[in-house]
Amino acid sequence: MSCLFCAIVAGAMPAQVVLDEPDLLGFLDARPVFKGHVLLVPREHVDTILDLPARLREPLLEATQRLAAALVDGLGAQGSFVAMNNVVSQSVPHLHVHVVPRTKGDGLRGFFWPRTTYADDVEAAEYAGRLAVALADPSAR
Amino acid sequence: MSCLFCAIVAGAMPAQVVLDEPDLLGFLDARPVFKGHVLLVPREHVDTILDLPARLREPLLEATQRLAAALVDGLGAQGSFVAMNNVVSQSVPHLHVHVVPRTKGDGLRGFFWPRTTYADDVEAAEYAGRLAVALADPSAR
Repeated sequence: MSCLFCAIVAGAMPAQVVLDEPDLLGFLDARPVFKGHVLLVPREHVDTILDLPARLREPLLEATQRLAAALVDGLGAQGSFVAMNNVVSQSVPHLHVHVVPRTKGDGLRGFFWPRTTYADDVEAAEYAGRLAVALADPSAR
Repeated sequence: MSCLFCAIVAGAMPAQVVLDEPDLLGFLDARPVFKGHVLLVPREHVDTILDLPARLREPLLEATQRLAAALVDGLGAQGSFVAMNNVVSQSVPHLHVHVVPRTKGDGLRGFFWPRTTYADDVEAAEYAGRLAVALADPSAR
């Protein structure tokens, strides 16, 4: 079993499980950004968000909501950071939602830095147009 | 209208719109992490992921999938970073999903740093237990 998260789902690798449901498993990240950082995965192996089957969309986001609430209720966090890395910076190629407790002044402020800017409105419109074209023609994939 | 994203939804503030649907609006972040960075918002004002109504869970994640695909198809990205900041680091208190194009070597590798560690398995189990309790008793909210 070469996928670490499939091994955890199968019980072949240990993990601190916090959410155990028919379609989903939530467990502590062993190297958390902050303590209480949970990884939520579909039990079924899917590589990235692009591969998530339609039937799992609602359950995945519903469980993410419950975990984000549990960080507040159970750990006293003020808020949460919810994220998925797809392909790039994705250390395990099995879709996982990071649900991370956040508190003001916790030191994570830099993670969305640096920002860039569009040269002008024309460049921004050009990017928006390329995305709109791709959205309008998914068959081109 | 004090909410910036409600103003964009209402057409009272300009934005480069890439996805315009009955329940959702997707537009370029004016200060992107990388060019093509989209913000996807429910048209209805909700503060954070905790407030997202059940009926919008499936549409929100489905549109996120389409946007993540469009970054690859339309902009040539290799992958995507999908994230929501809730309360802490949330610059606009109207739920928004960041959908950011990623390419290997793009320089964003530091955003999940630093990681910490649990003192031992006992501490990790203690955190997992607090989350499990909070998940088991949402009525305690």
